[in-house]
Amino acid sequence: MISFECDYLTGAHPAILKRLMETNLAAESGYGEDEFSLSAKQKIAALCGTAPEQVFLLAGGTQTNQLVISTMLTHYEGVIAATTGHVESHEAGAIEFTGHKVLTVEEHDGKIRPEDLEAYMKTFTSDGNKDHMVQPGMVYISHPTEYGTLYGLQELKALRRICDEYGLYLYLDGARLGYGLASPDTDVSIRDIKDLTDVFYIGGTKCGALIGEALVFTKPENVPKYFFTSIKKHGDLLAKGRLVGIQFDVLFTDGLYSDICAHAMEMAVKLEKILKDKGLAIFRESPTNQKFVLLEDEVYERLSKDVKMSFWEKPDENHTAVRLATCWSTTEEDLKALEALL
Amino acid sequence: MISFECDYLTGAHPAILKRLMETNLAAESGYGEDEFSLSAKQKIAALCGTAPEQVFLLAGGTQTNQLVISTMLTHYEGVIAATTGHVESHEAGAIEFTGHKVLTVEEHDGKIRPEDLEAYMKTFTSDGNKDHMVQPGMVYISHPTEYGTLYGLQELKALRRICDEYGLYLYLDGARLGYGLASPDTDVSIRDIKDLTDVFYIGGTKCGALIGEALVFTKPENVPKYFFTSIKKHGDLLAKGRLVGIQFDVLFTDGLYSDICAHAMEMAVKLEKILKDKGLAIFRESPTNQKFVLLEDEVYERLSKDVKMSFWEKPDENHTAVRLATCWSTTEEDLKALEALL
Amino acid sequence: MISFECDYLTGAHPAILKRLMETNLAAESGYGEDEFSLSAKQKIAALCGTAPEQVFLLAGGTQTNQLVISTMLTHYEGVIAATTGHVESHEAGAIEFTGHKVLTVEEHDGKIRPEDLEAYMKTFTSDGNKDHMVQPGMVYISHPTEYGTLYGLQELKALRRICDEYGLYLYLDGARLGYGLASPDTDVSIRDIKDLTDVFYIGGTKCGALIGEALVFTKPENVPKYFFTSIKKHGDLLAKGRLVGIQFDVLFTDGLYSDICAHAMEMAVKLEKILKDKGLAIFRESPTNQKFVLLEDEVYERLSKDVKMSFWEKPDENHTAVRLATCWSTTEEDLKALEALL
Amino acid sequence: MISFECDYLTGAHPAILKRLMETNLAAESGYGEDEFSLSAKQKIAALCGTAPEQVFLLAGGTQTNQLVISTMLTHYEGVIAATTGHVESHEAGAIEFTGHKVLTVEEHDGKIRPEDLEAYMKTFTSDGNKDHMVQPGMVYISHPTEYGTLYGLQELKALRRICDEYGLYLYLDGARLGYGLASPDTDVSIRDIKDLTDVFYIGGTKCGALIGEALVFTKPENVPKYFFTSIKKHGDLLAKGRLVGIQFDVLFTDGLYSDICAHAMEMAVKLEKILKDKGLAIFRESPTNQKFVLLEDEVYERLSKDVKMSFWEKPDENHTAVRLATCWSTTEEDLKALEALL
Repeated sequence: MISFECDYLTGAHPAILKRLMETNLAAESGYGEDEFSLSAKQKIAALCGTAPEQVFLLAGGTQTNQLVISTMLTHYEGVIAATTGHVESHEAGAIEFTGHKVLTVEEHDGKIRPEDLEAYMKTFTSDGNKDHMVQPGMVYISHPTEYGTLYGLQELKALRRICDEYGLYLYLDGARLGYGLASPDTDVSIRDIKDLTDVFYIGGTKCGALIGEALVFTKPENVPKYFFTSIKKHGDLLAKGRLVGIQFDVLFTDGLYSDICAHAMEMAVKLEKILKDKGLAIFRESPTNQKFVLLEDEVYERLSKDVKMSFWEKPDENHTAVRLATCWSTTEEDLKALEALL
Repeated sequence: MISFECDYLTGAHPAILKRLMETNLAAESGYGEDEFSLSAKQKIAALCGTAPEQVFLLAGGTQTNQLVISTMLTHYEGVIAATTGHVESHEAGAIEFTGHKVLTVEEHDGKIRPEDLEAYMKTFTSDGNKDHMVQPGMVYISHPTEYGTLYGLQELKALRRICDEYGLYLYLDGARLGYGLASPDTDVSIRDIKDLTDVFYIGGTKCGALIGEALVFTKPENVPKYFFTSIKKHGDLLAKGRLVGIQFDVLFTDGLYSDICAHAMEMAVKLEKILKDKGLAIFRESPTNQKFVLLEDEVYERLSKDVKMSFWEKPDENHTAVRLATCWSTTEEDLKALEALL
Repeated sequence: MISFECDYLTGAHPAILKRLMETNLAAESGYGEDEFSLSAKQKIAALCGTAPEQVFLLAGGTQTNQLVISTMLTHYEGVIAATTGHVESHEAGAIEFTGHKVLTVEEHDGKIRPEDLEAYMKTFTSDGNKDHMVQPGMVYISHPTEYGTLYGLQELKALRRICDEYGLYLYLDGARLGYGLASPDTDVSIRDIKDLTDVFYIGGTKCGALIGEALVFTKPENVPKYFFTSIKKHGDLLAKGRLVGIQFDVLFTDGLYSDICAHAMEMAVKLEKILKDKGLAIFRESPTNQKFVLLEDEVYERLSKDVKMSFWEKPDENHTAVRLATCWSTTEEDLKALEALL
Repeated sequence: MISFECDYLTGAHPAILKRLMETNLAAESGYGEDEFSLSAKQKIAALCGTAPEQVFLLAGGTQTNQLVISTMLTHYEGVIAATTGHVESHEAGAIEFTGHKVLTVEEHDGKIRPEDLEAYMKTFTSDGNKDHMVQPGMVYISHPTEYGTLYGLQELKALRRICDEYGLYLYLDGARLGYGLASPDTDVSIRDIKDLTDVFYIGGTKCGALIGEALVFTKPENVPKYFFTSIKKHGDLLAKGRLVGIQFDVLFTDGLYSDICAHAMEMAVKLEKILKDKGLAIFRESPTNQKFVLLEDEVYERLSKDVKMSFWEKPDENHTAVRLATCWSTTEEDLKALEALL
């Protein structure tokens, strides 16, 4: 059985486990005040061009989204997301749980188009009843999106301009950021993201770590006051914060994070080529590590015996759309095995 | 430098790391649906006498408290805790964040005395304005408590009786449960806890794991509906749930959890003897792995150069109360070194 | 200056004020336990075919929506509304404030079409990720809608059937219910509403009262436990509950509520005739007391000097859509004055 | 039957009803934008020495407490109250519902003693774990308190000084403020309150209105941003805001509010004299309109047949403590009737 089901189904990159072993007996302060976390924050800060105090290490993506949105927004504000945005669709109401409304803009390829955002804000600000409405305070985008697509640099700049005009924060959910940065089709660097957003996170869990997301506030003034206390209040503070610290310290030493994602992207490019060479229809174009392909049901059933894939949707009676994803642990052998099966 | 500062400052028991290595390449389902988590739940269920579906694996203690209290209570209910209860004092308002009030009863040695709980409920139920008040729905106790003390079996039975009389859930926070069960001074077994409470958790983070708490609902009907969805809603669902699953699977194989805590308790008994033999005053009596001792300030300062301890409080101008804790990684050498220093 | 701006801009029907005077010195229990409230509940219950214990008197509409939704839903559930539903668009996030998500279905004439609701639920229940999503628990409809339109009896029955199939509550917001019941174009009676919904409210504020909405749970088991305490918890319990009690007691004595709304509907029918006779384009068809008309900007400006109207929207450069509403205090003289001005 | 049960059991001062009649047909803007509300705000502002924009008219006391606390505090902050404070004990968790913890200080005569507040803050700020705790952000006091007692000017100044030192807001709940200001035993004026607090409200419901509380932010910068939207979000915005506006406009014209409370205080002084002359034991000393007296059970039972009183508590087997209150509608005849009965 080979698995292309998702990018969070195997353990961690071996270098992470090795480091966990080496450091196991060191007695370090709890709650993220350990040396490993500090070192990780310094490395991430250096890469992004911020101060270490602007970097926070958290456990998971929904948790990070919930924390960012509920601490940066004031209580009467909501967050604008695409209709397909993770915070709108698949977080079980984690944002509303904190009292904030998710305001939606129609998605296009999983993205918010700048013109749609601008139209939304023009309509809102000219509405005579706007004081009876949730005030937009932030724009949430994912990069790569839930469909594996990417914003171009010009799109990010346009979103930034609109956010500036209307006083909105721009937040980038980077659960799979590494794959976005490593995509051959991107013109966006991590420094661009730092320059154009107010806050973003670098996904660890889906990019080779056991758990962990590194949250970066791009300006010192964007760090919410008492953010440590808020992490605790959310039940998100790990006593052994070292667990996330060690992982990010390893990932951001000698470019490991980039290497992991470059490898996965190399596998993804080859995967897409195999799928196309086999004459399969691409269901959704994606320039990152998730590939969406349309299979005849008969093929889907046969293949499912040997290959783990994600069911995506059933567009018609005879076909099934599936998602295949690569990650740090995907090998050439996996690809060859898939190719042989197709 | 030797450390007795706390029980969550080193990594994990080596058997856990070994197993993380062995299982690293296995591609398993996410969100806790993996084989390791299932196996861990089965072992814990067998130990406690429940079904595996009554066991949930979570990341941390405050998170678990928040989830349990906010999903078992109805929105108009509150939870009764000792004034020193962790949910009242040191969770940054995590319970109130979910809309529930913590109702307090005066602590005695960190515990709720049955007579105080009964008096509280009698007063409440006879109050003519009780419909204008938060309805008590649960009693929260920690075992060991925040002071390292333990409930006796008769005390737990008395609390249970009162909870039954007034229709309250009884919830036991077992962040350090293993030390409580391994204490030479206890008459309470895990089966007693299963029989006498409605829900409790077995602490992993402070008992040899990297992260993780195992939550046990003692009756099938106590499991909140859609609990999985609630975990997600709280931002507490780990994509790689295997990380916690593997750890609890190891801890509950061949009695490792008991062994770890028995070792720590053996170290704690010796530690207490050393402290007493050296003529130091015990600041608070504790039958578990946390020892509270009173030091002259001069001794405290000298010792601090070589020994990490937790500052507890300053009861007078010339003395400092400190806490020393043992854990899985405490060694005879650590004890000897401390003895030599004293 | 004559006013057709809205139906809540003058005071109360004179019979209400008269009764406030008559009863002023009676010392009655607070918090809605007074004789007037009890009498009002009995009259409303008799009209609707429920027990008085299923009727609650509240102050305002958004407050009522917030209370109903947050007490009938469990914490992991959301409410389905049309995109134009008041709870979605114009309550400043009052529902999300309580932790519940508003799930949207595209509106048609301000209504949820049964086929759209059914499609929504089919998609939801077949979604492999539905445990990561907010669980639908209730359908919210307004009748009349925000556009003044009405559900037909067959539509209500179809919605009821779908709600039964999927285990959803059906909640009807009747802020302007009286006008809906008095409309010449309706085939829906209050008993139909009682039979087909789980909960609804009879609007007072917009139908001749100073404040007040009468909430009716259509089955005894639908009344949330500790609802009185929840009203207090929301800050919605009036010390002098008599103020609302007296008003509803008057409104539901000798059919005054029906008479008020019948009068307003008579005025509305005449108003629509005047508008059409003057050759004005109807912007939205509405069978109730709100009429939407399209004016040339020049006409709009001229008319605004003598007539208060609600600006609705600006569909093109030369026209303005406005809303005119009738209410208990609208007179034949108002209509004649408007006719003369047009 | 005569009633001394409470101060919110009869209707409104006749001048209020008269004005409701006179203004009934005026078509005025909704949501508090009417001329009556504006006029009321101007009069209250002039009295207090603020701008009208710092005055807001709301419906009830718990609602006002909830709004003030949840909009002035940041999400990680809590409010300090006496253990007997209304927000702590009798609001059914209205504050926690908004996510904020009530932090308690032991009451003395229903008040927070400055020395206790100072000790609380000293302990908090020196606690090594304070980042794991709810941050105090406001002090809540009631004046008169729930026991009818009053803060002296020096006490208020001392509280102010401590609040300044620790960066806390000082909020005064004036549900019965008029009686406090009219008490013969007070040295505190409304201007003192304006000078020494950050926000307070002038109670209407218990001082002669049907409903309504006038909230005053003592400095322009204390008004929470988008406060109007927050009122809506809480479900507290009245469509016919005129109802409260008219009442406060009447109450603050020609000193009616003072006159009403002076009358009630005159009655209260006489009431207390009657009670003492009859040899009854005062249960709690109160300088305002609530009098607490200890009755032999036999007397209590006999008196209850003719006099409505509030049961307060049962301090021993043979006695009952009751509360008698005066208000705008209390008459000399009521007093004489009571005297005759005793």
